[in-house]
Amino acid sequence: MDKFLHEHPITPRTESEKKAVVNRLKRIEGQVRGIQKMVEEDRYCVDILVQISAINAALKKVGYTVAERHMKYCVSHAVQSGEGNDMIEELMEVMKQISK
Amino acid sequence: MDKFLHEHPITPRTESEKKAVVNRLKRIEGQVRGIQKMVEEDRYCVDILVQISAINAALKKVGYTVAERHMKYCVSHAVQSGEGNDMIEELMEVMKQISK
Amino acid sequence: MDKFLHEHPITPRTESEKKAVVNRLKRIEGQVRGIQKMVEEDRYCVDILVQISAINAALKKVGYTVAERHMKYCVSHAVQSGEGNDMIEELMEVMKQISK
Amino acid sequence: MDKFLHEHPITPRTESEKKAVVNRLKRIEGQVRGIQKMVEEDRYCVDILVQISAINAALKKVGYTVAERHMKYCVSHAVQSGEGNDMIEELMEVMKQISK
Repeated sequence: MDKFLHEHPITPRTESEKKAVVNRLKRIEGQVRGIQKMVEEDRYCVDILVQISAINAALKKVGYTVAERHMKYCVSHAVQSGEGNDMIEELMEVMKQISK
Repeated sequence: MDKFLHEHPITPRTESEKKAVVNRLKRIEGQVRGIQKMVEEDRYCVDILVQISAINAALKKVGYTVAERHMKYCVSHAVQSGEGNDMIEELMEVMKQISK
Repeated sequence: MDKFLHEHPITPRTESEKKAVVNRLKRIEGQVRGIQKMVEEDRYCVDILVQISAINAALKKVGYTVAERHMKYCVSHAVQSGEGNDMIEELMEVMKQISK
Repeated sequence: MDKFLHEHPITPRTESEKKAVVNRLKRIEGQVRGIQKMVEEDRYCVDILVQISAINAALKKVGYTVAERHMKYCVSHAVQSGEGNDMIEELMEVMKQISK
């Protein structure tokens, strides 16, 4: 996908929506810093791998939240204006990437 | 896996090994902060998903680096002392998690 | 997800759509049989793993084709009748499973 | 990975090991045929996706069984003859593919 169709969601995110996602990302940021510390303290490899796997799961969860909202607002809106298919293909492309 | 067998890798990480991993994690931390900003600026959902997918890929890469080193040092050492199988099972368990 | 909302797609698959998917599944079926043979011939583990990974990729591709068609027909139709959100949640649930 | 180092596992699979893996693959083959039937009967997209996701999970499980055995026999053997690292790198390469 080399070009995005939009700058913003069709229906703007509410402040509470933004806050919920940002809070989850802040937690993830903290977890990433936590792993840096583990590496610096030369902690056991498998403990580090467990943390990495937890962050990956948390990030995917954020991704699914974003994707679901995208479908409920942007894609649905596009479908109603008869332009759903482009947006569906755009979304499928990125879902393939995320699921890797 | 509810219990880890070790506190540290059998062969300590060198300073340059630590630095290489920490640098990659710092970059990932920056990317996570970048997504927070995108959410706050109400950026387009698919742009955010593309970033999430990039971070996941970067994290997995760190994971594979850690796992490979674990096999070359810790697991190999355990194999040579006749205790490889426990460590192999421990590693497989966490690889299943990471690959999700 | 413990209950499916429909027995069939809202717009029936055409014969050529069915044939295209079935052909890909027949190829996958042949690949699975190929691995059985490899195991019986006691072939090298990594060769078998490479084949398993190829089948997984092929299956996911079929999954994305089915999901994309589902969005273009069933979900789009539901959106137009004002019942899109249930179907979107149903789809997200199964996408999470597939991406594991 | 464009070249495999071996034709066979270092320690041959026993008949019962072979049978266990082949049986699981036969079940997977049956599941793939089951999806073909679902497509021919024009069954609901999400039902088909659920089945695809079940097969992917089953295949990955076979993959992990094969990989674990590979580590316990082939990789361990290579480690003991001082040639572990090549085989570890070969394995990591294919694990990255499988986890996609």
